[in-house]
Amino acid sequence: MTRYYGGKRLKNNNNSRLKIIPLGGLEQIGMNITAFEYEDSIVVVDCGLSFPEDDMLGVDLVIPDISYLRDNADKVKGFVITHGHEDHIGAIPYVMRELEATIYGTKLTIGIIDNKLKEHNMLRQVKRKVVKHGQSINLGSFRIEFIKTNHSIVDASALAIYSPAGIVVHTGDFKIDYTPVFGEAIDLQRLGEIGKKGVLALMCDSTNAERHGFTMSERTVGKVFDSLFSDHSGSRIIVATFASNVDRVQQIINTSYKFGRKVAVEGRSMVNIISIAQEYGYIQIPDNTLIDIDQLKDYPPEKTTIITTGSQGESMAALSRIASSMHKKISIMPGDTVIFSSNPIPGNEKAVSKVINELLKKGADVIFQDTHVSGHACQEEIKLIYSIVKPKYAIPIHGEFKHRKAQANVVKELGYDSDHIFMLSSGDVLEMSDDFAGVTGKVSEGAILVDGLGVGDVGSTVLRDRHILSEHGIIIVVMTLEKGCGQLLAGPDIISRGFVYVKESEDLMEEATTLLEDTLSDILSRNITDWNKIKNALRDALSDFVWRKTKRSPMIMPIIMEV
Amino acid sequence: MTRYYGGKRLKNNNNSRLKIIPLGGLEQIGMNITAFEYEDSIVVVDCGLSFPEDDMLGVDLVIPDISYLRDNADKVKGFVITHGHEDHIGAIPYVMRELEATIYGTKLTIGIIDNKLKEHNMLRQVKRKVVKHGQSINLGSFRIEFIKTNHSIVDASALAIYSPAGIVVHTGDFKIDYTPVFGEAIDLQRLGEIGKKGVLALMCDSTNAERHGFTMSERTVGKVFDSLFSDHSGSRIIVATFASNVDRVQQIINTSYKFGRKVAVEGRSMVNIISIAQEYGYIQIPDNTLIDIDQLKDYPPEKTTIITTGSQGESMAALSRIASSMHKKISIMPGDTVIFSSNPIPGNEKAVSKVINELLKKGADVIFQDTHVSGHACQEEIKLIYSIVKPKYAIPIHGEFKHRKAQANVVKELGYDSDHIFMLSSGDVLEMSDDFAGVTGKVSEGAILVDGLGVGDVGSTVLRDRHILSEHGIIIVVMTLEKGCGQLLAGPDIISRGFVYVKESEDLMEEATTLLEDTLSDILSRNITDWNKIKNALRDALSDFVWRKTKRSPMIMPIIMEV
Repeated sequence: MTRYYGGKRLKNNNNSRLKIIPLGGLEQIGMNITAFEYEDSIVVVDCGLSFPEDDMLGVDLVIPDISYLRDNADKVKGFVITHGHEDHIGAIPYVMRELEATIYGTKLTIGIIDNKLKEHNMLRQVKRKVVKHGQSINLGSFRIEFIKTNHSIVDASALAIYSPAGIVVHTGDFKIDYTPVFGEAIDLQRLGEIGKKGVLALMCDSTNAERHGFTMSERTVGKVFDSLFSDHSGSRIIVATFASNVDRVQQIINTSYKFGRKVAVEGRSMVNIISIAQEYGYIQIPDNTLIDIDQLKDYPPEKTTIITTGSQGESMAALSRIASSMHKKISIMPGDTVIFSSNPIPGNEKAVSKVINELLKKGADVIFQDTHVSGHACQEEIKLIYSIVKPKYAIPIHGEFKHRKAQANVVKELGYDSDHIFMLSSGDVLEMSDDFAGVTGKVSEGAILVDGLGVGDVGSTVLRDRHILSEHGIIIVVMTLEKGCGQLLAGPDIISRGFVYVKESEDLMEEATTLLEDTLSDILSRNITDWNKIKNALRDALSDFVWRKTKRSPMIMPIIMEV
Repeated sequence: MTRYYGGKRLKNNNNSRLKIIPLGGLEQIGMNITAFEYEDSIVVVDCGLSFPEDDMLGVDLVIPDISYLRDNADKVKGFVITHGHEDHIGAIPYVMRELEATIYGTKLTIGIIDNKLKEHNMLRQVKRKVVKHGQSINLGSFRIEFIKTNHSIVDASALAIYSPAGIVVHTGDFKIDYTPVFGEAIDLQRLGEIGKKGVLALMCDSTNAERHGFTMSERTVGKVFDSLFSDHSGSRIIVATFASNVDRVQQIINTSYKFGRKVAVEGRSMVNIISIAQEYGYIQIPDNTLIDIDQLKDYPPEKTTIITTGSQGESMAALSRIASSMHKKISIMPGDTVIFSSNPIPGNEKAVSKVINELLKKGADVIFQDTHVSGHACQEEIKLIYSIVKPKYAIPIHGEFKHRKAQANVVKELGYDSDHIFMLSSGDVLEMSDDFAGVTGKVSEGAILVDGLGVGDVGSTVLRDRHILSEHGIIIVVMTLEKGCGQLLAGPDIISRGFVYVKESEDLMEEATTLLEDTLSDILSRNITDWNKIKNALRDALSDFVWRKTKRSPMIMPIIMEV
């Protein structure tokens, strides 16, 4: 049997099915990575990282478990990246230490990946190729077409994934913006054309699927800036936004230029992305508009704009450091206007409030309404995409379960049956062909914790210990026994950290030492010499005592030395 | 000079001023407690606690530093409580261990305080007195009048605080509800009457001061329940809400009764408050409506309602335990309808989402829109209160700085000058009289951390240690030296917790041990016997080594034993 896909004839083995395997991103939000497998070919879409959950103490980053790809390394034909956000590219430097494969993406996306690889000293060892919207690449049994979309970062793509078993359309993160700031609107014509060919499955962004209506055009924010800058013409204006939102930065620069203001950019990640965007022509900055932070003093404050990172209240970002007077070059002056061009991402609300309170206390005027639009599609946009692509099956992706469930409900409204909607979990193997669609298995998946230079060396035991230590600290009981006879030579001594003020606990510690001495002499008098037994007896006695006296459960750690 | 206050003639010494001293609640939100002082009389309004900030590791509760009250204990004439929420009553059992004073409040408020004192075994030692709305009590130079308000807990009060220096009106937490579920609307007539006498200052709730318009009546939620119960007549309904919102519970019971459902209540704090409310007649439950959790099985699911705690995603609350299958008696069945009759309090968004995702995964239908109204006044209500009380000075209270600043902006719109609006900090001493108003000093204030049975024994050192331990764990280096000569007898041995998998770190630890042995033999060969010097050298060497190899900074703790 043969079928046409995009004008190309591909052989279809009746026994062969397309496998779609999300390796992450469904439980641990952000870690987006999906394998598409057909016979001896695997293509991977995106390679993102997550930031640690609250209970992942001390962890810096979370990356996906790619053991399935490692085990099938010879099949992996390439990585295809939808756009340059961390949750779609962040794990590349880690994954590329273990796999050899070329990375494909649009110009800005590859530019941002290049920058990341450079930071990891890996630019030489990883191949990248730039693909234009409308272009296709052949990877084993697959052909992948890049389709223009709109998102909160420019150069974002949807993908049409052509396989002998059928076409899958993957939206990436997207919204529909008929009047984008840079470049074209999403290529609805091409999506319609592909839809007409017959699409097996649509994997569609669910982030905003709980929201009714349409996401507003990025351009509407520009009008708000114009009106805010006009209202605050007498004061310095500081705008905080997402580092990677080049269109937003473009609009802030446009408005600043219109009002005769010089613009300084602060925050390493933003400076990086703007310089890449400028180099590749994704942002137009009028001459003599951009100035260095150090030049701010040469202009009257009301003739300057500062664009900065830290809109999520991140403690080390520029705006937080400015707000808490920890920034070396910028301090808040009474009368400054600070605009949050962002919404707090869930979980960041308190951190953002903290920064706002600090700014207000220093006399700044803080504005955080109507100065942001989302980069994700709402319900009416999701309906539009389904109606134009008309897939046989729906696979909601990107978002927590509740968001994906909300998309499933939207899709049901469009007339889809429940058995044509797949709510996948990470590791699920969804097999598809003309006459079959179902989850047939599960591959290894999971979250690998990155802490400093360590990748995967922090697991549940270490986290459990860190949790106990963080709650009530540690009490160490140390003693020296004589080799052979087990005679007590020194100790038991008690040392604690993170438990209680030393001063406050003197009596408690004295009483505890007496208790341990008694326990120990009792054990030793019974000729017990098994260190584990001794340690357990001491641990039990001390932990009972401490709980009774303080209602706390510090980690208790007996250490025996032998001389 | 004499002035009339509420028909009573009070002597006013020209040199005497009223002092208003917020001892907490302005920086550490929740810990509401304010001292009103006039000559030898102090009256304290509210006595609340806070829950720990994210960086207060292992801390259970936060209570105010009352050293100012302790130092002036002989002046303290009584505690006056506006309503029964934790952020207004929670510190009472701790504060009453140090002060002897009677507590005054309305019936339900005192009922809830009684319950709390009972849990602390302190019912006998603390005097409480019930005051009715409209009633006044005399406390030293003060007279305090309780005025009916509306809030998300019944029996809430505003206070008119009459002093020889003038009247202060304190709103407590309030909203304006013209159609409350239980009892009367806020006593606007009396507030107008007091306003006519001339009010020196208004201390007004700022929690919702950023929001335009009016907060809806509690009764509107009842209508939403009616319509939701009608839509979901075929399924069991679980409603999560705040334990203390008796009116909300009343409405859920009313709707359940209307639809022929039995009601079970789950969650200790809710069961407690409902039983107090029932005993005092603040809630009416039709006969044969309330059933025990164990009786649920005797009725068809669609004829039952479960009202539960856990609407904020609190991990130990009933709903979270139900969602994660940890609840002994209730498990989610596909088709259950779960209604969140609440909004997430800032900081709880992620925890709430987690519970929602778990409920959806188990097949429940989750509803979390239009089923909650706030208990706090929005901008139009704040304007109404200012316009009816017409104080000379405005003192925004209750809320973060940004909320209080928003109230200040509302007050400015009403025509108040900036110098008639006081943005106080905790500990500020605001002095007021007819001809003066200003902050004249600062008293000791602060947050006392409660961890287990310990009150105030966890401070910045302990928290700093817990933070280091939580991030990267601890490495202990232990060795035994010979007394006198400093000869190494045993060790150095390395033991770590919360640092890295033991298996993964074997090579690292071996290398570290060698390094420590070399460092130690170098020191000992130079006849250095000062233990601190030895410890510092080992700590520096190991910490450099660990940072170089892992980019982590665990706590490093050398321990020397001497034999």
